Amino acid sequence: MSNPLPVGATIGILGGGQLGRMLAVAASRLGLKTHIFEPGANAPAGDVAHRVTTAAYDDAPALTAFGNAVDVITYEFENIPTSALDLLEKLAAIHPGRRALATSQDRLTEKTFLQDLGLKTAPFADVGNAEDLDAALAAIGTPAILKTRRMGYDGKGQARIMTPDDAAAALADMAGAPAILEGFVNFSHEVSVIGARGPDGAVACYDPGENVHEAGILRTTTVPAKLTPGQRTDAVLIAARILNALDYVGVMGVELFVTPQGLIVNEIAPRVHNSGHWTQNGCTICQFEQHIRAVACWPLGDGSRHADVVMENLIGDDMDRVPELAKTDAAIHLYGKADVKAGRKMGHVNRVIKPA
Amino acid sequence: MSNPLPVGATIGILGGGQLGRMLAVAASRLGLKTHIFEPGANAPAGDVAHRVTTAAYDDAPALTAFGNAVDVITYEFENIPTSALDLLEKLAAIHPGRRALATSQDRLTEKTFLQDLGLKTAPFADVGNAEDLDAALAAIGTPAILKTRRMGYDGKGQARIMTPDDAAAALADMAGAPAILEGFVNFSHEVSVIGARGPDGAVACYDPGENVHEAGILRTTTVPAKLTPGQRTDAVLIAARILNALDYVGVMGVELFVTPQGLIVNEIAPRVHNSGHWTQNGCTICQFEQHIRAVACWPLGDGSRHADVVMENLIGDDMDRVPELAKTDAAIHLYGKADVKAGRKMGHVNRVIKPA
Repeated sequence: MSNPLPVGATIGILGGGQLGRMLAVAASRLGLKTHIFEPGANAPAGDVAHRVTTAAYDDAPALTAFGNAVDVITYEFENIPTSALDLLEKLAAIHPGRRALATSQDRLTEKTFLQDLGLKTAPFADVGNAEDLDAALAAIGTPAILKTRRMGYDGKGQARIMTPDDAAAALADMAGAPAILEGFVNFSHEVSVIGARGPDGAVACYDPGENVHEAGILRTTTVPAKLTPGQRTDAVLIAARILNALDYVGVMGVELFVTPQGLIVNEIAPRVHNSGHWTQNGCTICQFEQHIRAVACWPLGDGSRHADVVMENLIGDDMDRVPELAKTDAAIHLYGKADVKAGRKMGHVNRVIKPA
Repeated sequence: MSNPLPVGATIGILGGGQLGRMLAVAASRLGLKTHIFEPGANAPAGDVAHRVTTAAYDDAPALTAFGNAVDVITYEFENIPTSALDLLEKLAAIHPGRRALATSQDRLTEKTFLQDLGLKTAPFADVGNAEDLDAALAAIGTPAILKTRRMGYDGKGQARIMTPDDAAAALADMAGAPAILEGFVNFSHEVSVIGARGPDGAVACYDPGENVHEAGILRTTTVPAKLTPGQRTDAVLIAARILNALDYVGVMGVELFVTPQGLIVNEIAPRVHNSGHWTQNGCTICQFEQHIRAVACWPLGDGSRHADVVMENLIGDDMDRVPELAKTDAAIHLYGKADVKAGRKMGHVNRVIKPA
């Protein structure tokens, strides 16, 4: 294990959205600087970072200068081009590591990895063409969902197949991209575990939260989640197994379906996660600081929950509600995005309901 | 009352130390940008601010550009030159206002103001020369403390007079600066109230904290403070009376001595206050966000205390303890200062002891 980064060291963050913004704020609490690398202008994270590089992920000179200017590299999203990682890993350690990224960037690799670990997933099959899809539908049945293997988020790159007649249109939606067919899972609700692992192998998980989505986008997370004590233990053990198998360093989001047959892993995200935003007002050490601690080789902090919390995302026009929300007891977290767009995550509120 | 500042608006902050740094972080939660004005290089607040102007307080062009670039101005310390305020107030509203600054910049003005409000203070007298001092000592007695009227902080600019024989040396220590003689107060302990007032006149105070100083520098603040219910009410009412009398906008620190004769006001600070740092881990809305809310014309937030907390300052070599502190449940807040110096505030830790 490396030495902890000293005060004044710089954490490089790939991606300058709201997750990078909140990571930068957490780093500042530990006396660490942040340097954001982001292709888009006016990155939300730029407002609170020591430095910002505005450049594309294929801009080798910009990547090289960035890699040389930072002490460790982390990221706020998993779809970082491999070529950028190849260049950067020669200049500074990247946490979480390449294996976690490779696993989570590809739904087929991810599902296979989880299955090999002995964890339950939705039934799935690789779909490269119409024949594959026919065979997959024959094996898995309908309803099912066809998804691109790569670059999907917030419900994008997905097509439902309710009957075999939908197959051709769904495949067309993939636009030739490699895909995966996933069977429907009959679940009562979704929970997620925000887990952290340090370079020394220490693992700490936050209490699972219960997620409600609308139109494929997370709407609310509530802690505590509706889980039996046994399910809660299972959820944390599943997250820990994944973290250890990947020799993971940092915070990961693990989404789980709750079913009568047990917990089924939906997907993993090798980064801080929207469903962990409640930790900002429910724990002494939030997920953002926990991630910074891990990638900076600091000991993990106290992630115990001191309150029941409901986190609600502010999406698009929800911003119109901010003046009223400001009059309530809610804790408001806005991302400083100038343009309100439908479906765009603009902020969130944490309502602390009562002591845990 | 003005309209609330919208997302993306900029708060100008005079002073770029740790208080400015934590104000900038709090502003980011509300989607607001910050612009720091600070004479010194490598300002701690610069790491998390959208913009930094490094210039002296008598640099009129720099002040003008700063004033034109921001939507409202606040500050992290009270000793801002009057000439800078004269220039800036023509360009943007300054919160807290000039009266609060004028009152707190001068110990004589401050004590007189408090006395006129009907509040108890230590006995005091204006001292311009040796004759004044003799008369003051005759009236107040010894032991007493001679202090410069202006620019004192953390015990600087003070000389104790244990017997009248110390008078000449104490006066020499003032180096010709106007001074005030203060009588000793026989107090059991010191508490402080962190109060906030919005432009609409709403007042909210945090639960009083109990302060322990060493060598004139705050060492720890503990909540709850040792106070009877009546004293706790008195403390909050005193703070509210001061806030209202100054038509104050923002957060103020009010230091009180607890004596058998009641609460005696030691001093007021028209800014966020070291003894309010515990609110970062003991409340949903900390003092820094409360201050930003007030100066940005947002409603005040929920400052109720959810935990017992001990805040400890990390001063100078205390930084050597950080690796061990990081292994505990404490919340660490470091200021990113590169150089450790004796007596320099480098950070603080909040230990959440138990639910309130």
